[in-house]
Amino acid sequence: MREDQIFLLPGPTPVPPQSLRSMSSPMINHRGPAFKEILEEVTPQIQKIMETKNDVFILTASGTGGMEAAVANFTSPGDKVLVASIGSFGERFKKICERYGTVVDFIDFPWGTAIDPEVIREKLNKDKKREIKAIFLQHNETSTGVINDLKAVSEARGEHPALLIVDAVSGLAAGELKTDAWNLDVVISGSQKAFMIPPGLAMISVSQRAWEVAQKSTNPVFYFDLKQYKEFLSKGQTPWTPAISLFYALKESLQLMLEEGLDNILKRHRLHRDMVRAGVKAIGLELLASDEVASPAVTAVIAPEGIQVNAIRSLMQNKYNVALAGGQGKLKNKIFRIGHLGYVKPTDIFAALASLELVLTELGLKVDLGVGVRAAQRVLLERSGENAHTSQ
Amino acid sequence: MREDQIFLLPGPTPVPPQSLRSMSSPMINHRGPAFKEILEEVTPQIQKIMETKNDVFILTASGTGGMEAAVANFTSPGDKVLVASIGSFGERFKKICERYGTVVDFIDFPWGTAIDPEVIREKLNKDKKREIKAIFLQHNETSTGVINDLKAVSEARGEHPALLIVDAVSGLAAGELKTDAWNLDVVISGSQKAFMIPPGLAMISVSQRAWEVAQKSTNPVFYFDLKQYKEFLSKGQTPWTPAISLFYALKESLQLMLEEGLDNILKRHRLHRDMVRAGVKAIGLELLASDEVASPAVTAVIAPEGIQVNAIRSLMQNKYNVALAGGQGKLKNKIFRIGHLGYVKPTDIFAALASLELVLTELGLKVDLGVGVRAAQRVLLERSGENAHTSQ
Repeated sequence: MREDQIFLLPGPTPVPPQSLRSMSSPMINHRGPAFKEILEEVTPQIQKIMETKNDVFILTASGTGGMEAAVANFTSPGDKVLVASIGSFGERFKKICERYGTVVDFIDFPWGTAIDPEVIREKLNKDKKREIKAIFLQHNETSTGVINDLKAVSEARGEHPALLIVDAVSGLAAGELKTDAWNLDVVISGSQKAFMIPPGLAMISVSQRAWEVAQKSTNPVFYFDLKQYKEFLSKGQTPWTPAISLFYALKESLQLMLEEGLDNILKRHRLHRDMVRAGVKAIGLELLASDEVASPAVTAVIAPEGIQVNAIRSLMQNKYNVALAGGQGKLKNKIFRIGHLGYVKPTDIFAALASLELVLTELGLKVDLGVGVRAAQRVLLERSGENAHTSQ
Repeated sequence: MREDQIFLLPGPTPVPPQSLRSMSSPMINHRGPAFKEILEEVTPQIQKIMETKNDVFILTASGTGGMEAAVANFTSPGDKVLVASIGSFGERFKKICERYGTVVDFIDFPWGTAIDPEVIREKLNKDKKREIKAIFLQHNETSTGVINDLKAVSEARGEHPALLIVDAVSGLAAGELKTDAWNLDVVISGSQKAFMIPPGLAMISVSQRAWEVAQKSTNPVFYFDLKQYKEFLSKGQTPWTPAISLFYALKESLQLMLEEGLDNILKRHRLHRDMVRAGVKAIGLELLASDEVASPAVTAVIAPEGIQVNAIRSLMQNKYNVALAGGQGKLKNKIFRIGHLGYVKPTDIFAALASLELVLTELGLKVDLGVGVRAAQRVLLERSGENAHTSQ
């Protein structure tokens, strides 16, 4: 396998060369001034990306570790919680919440659709005794390529005291997320997504209200004990030895992100989404999610009748060196997913669409060669026109 | 600060150039054949290093995460456990065990000494009802530079059914550890020690007896759920997205380790220990641990009367670019520690001892310049002679 894949997974995502190179730097003392400098540089930068003044911590773990940290720190056994699910990662929140002995009201929206905020509003309105302690949900559901309207969910919560706990592992810096403006109590993210670094770090923000809940939590928690993270952050340290090399990469990638600016990053993700969707539609394939809820991070494509998902993915990989993802959970063998998250460029999308056209042709589908690429080019052209216009 | 420090911490430890470079490789799919190949290559190699046929898993977490995984998977609330402590990491095991609701019998041996196996034997003999479920202990206590005699502790356990759960984070591949021969049920290690890679991975081995206990554990555990790790390993995967770059480095470092051979690695660690100890003693400083229990990973040196530990460490760092560790817990400001663990070479030790002689002189101590270096040289010379002799 060539190392220089066209790497269109919804995580891990491509890592910029300067971030990759930074990881070859020698070790430093994680209790010394050099590490402190990095930690104190990147932490406020992540706050900026999360649009928050809340505390933000960086855990050495994958995104799932961040999800568990949220459940472990901000619930107690017996707590009533809502888990609003639209896919595989919603189910993961349910599993973790159950593992920690909460009483889960699982709202299972159809896969490929977004959360209906009215359902949440109704659940909370009926909860006259204010027994619901937390609402768990995804910002972006990686398994289906759907983005939730967090602002609307937050408004639906209204004055209800339940914490809003958001898995934004694949959504942060791909789709809009305003932690403070939308009163999101806990936001979890992961390094191997829009942060453009390898997997191994999880980020988590904590509101004041969430801290009050954490004080009373009776769960056993040690490695993910966020109170320890807070105490050590005040010394410029993490409580346990951090994945130092990944911090080197984080520093480089955040530099790139801040140079580009959050608005431009979000615009870029919308552009790439629209290019992919236009291209795939023009090829004649069906998308799982409707345009209204389409994820700026990943697009789920329904495999055409009679063609195996694995056949498409293998040919894409083996003939053209393009990495695509398959389906998860109940969508396994039914969809393939094109990631357009993080350090992806328009030319990657052209290349992937051109390859996809050939692969589908080889697999017996009638494809008008170049049709997908042309549709993506048109989106790019229009969007450049708009930008030229608005900048006048 | 120069990047090329003489890096003598007991973790993180120096990383070989080829392992550092490997981390600049682009991302791969953690659910694809390339990652599977790495995971299936490194797992049996770690079994070799651990001298075990037991299951071995690699977690994306620091060593503390591995310690928590052991407590969470192999105890249940209310279980009676022994924690045999000889320092700061023993105290950490106690904290984690308490957090998980076990009833801890904490045996607090004096810091700087090793576990007395007779105390364990007596505790277990008195436990006629076989209520003690597990014994937690360190292989090597990083905070004091003392190595425990695991074989003797295992013999002291005898037929008692308590699990033997060993934190070998800093000890594995520095000091002898025979998982199977000594019936160690759970062995935990970490990447940033003798494995010579950056922090971020923890390794854990699990015996059949430990699995039986895990089946009945009632703790909430998700990210560290080893049953999930077992299920996914059979597919060549980890349950959650792994720190891919660190696996690249692990593959390189294990290659180096197996080329050197475990016996030679252990011999090298003993040599470096003896060089450091001889040098420090010749300078006129006092060591915390006696020769009989001295750690092959790290040496704790008692700060001379009237000289601040921080003054020594700062001058060593700022003038000579030599990184040393301070004391932890009740040894803070009383000792400094010289790590000689992992990718350290004799010339690093000469350089560190020469610098230490100058720093102590500057701080007002009367030091016969060169005396420490000479003592270390003599150890090296003798040892080379022995090797030359035995190889005839």
